[in-house]
Amino acid sequence: MRITRTADYGVRIMTRLAAAPLGTRMTVAELAADSQSTAAFTGKILQRLVGARLVVSHRGFEGGFELARPADQITLLDIVEALDGSLCLNECMPKGAGCDRASSCGAYGVWLRAQEALAGVLRSQSLDQLAVAEQQAG
Amino acid sequence: MRITRTADYGVRIMTRLAAAPLGTRMTVAELAADSQSTAAFTGKILQRLVGARLVVSHRGFEGGFELARPADQITLLDIVEALDGSLCLNECMPKGAGCDRASSCGAYGVWLRAQEALAGVLRSQSLDQLAVAEQQAG
Repeated sequence: MRITRTADYGVRIMTRLAAAPLGTRMTVAELAADSQSTAAFTGKILQRLVGARLVVSHRGFEGGFELARPADQITLLDIVEALDGSLCLNECMPKGAGCDRASSCGAYGVWLRAQEALAGVLRSQSLDQLAVAEQQAG
Repeated sequence: MRITRTADYGVRIMTRLAAAPLGTRMTVAELAADSQSTAAFTGKILQRLVGARLVVSHRGFEGGFELARPADQITLLDIVEALDGSLCLNECMPKGAGCDRASSCGAYGVWLRAQEALAGVLRSQSLDQLAVAEQQAG
């Protein structure tokens, strides 16, 4: 029950983009260095963030990556779900494979509450708050 | 970010043991049938629950498995952690591999709060409550 390395580094990359002045475009090399990762892994994560419409890619001489919308309109849950898929604590959950015991299962409601508690914390945290916290901590 | 099949079925088995009258010993075959699993998989889970001291195994003619302590003294978190290991939402968490960025990371505190929210729900649910909920739902 753990987020993937992809989601972990995706949050680092998004936080770095959010900390840059509005309109700044950053290269894969810059983002890889800042998130202490390789260019190959960073590039793959950026592709998926572009696919999820959280990041926009610009080609050409002054190209690079920037957030697709202001950081106060992106939550930590948006980023985790873009990279790890919808939160699904157990396969019986609404977005899971389903389970024919769900209607008679004593645990179903608890799994659902636990998943919602987890999602609630991630949903309450906006990317701009993360960037501020990182600047204060660093 | 999902519990394993082992933990899912482990909760089914523990709930079944909790629903039986005090002192009842159940066989692997009975527990496998009740949790809609195979005897081999059920046996493996039971071995791990015995190792975690949540279940006691008795040998012999009137042998079988029973809870190691009353169901109101076992939480859903106890069962999940016995089978999936300590909750660890990200490798930087206290029981994870660690991360040298933890002190300057904006997300660290949020991962910790999210993990605690999840753990809190699982810790607040005792096995006897689960067994009652299952009987009412079934």
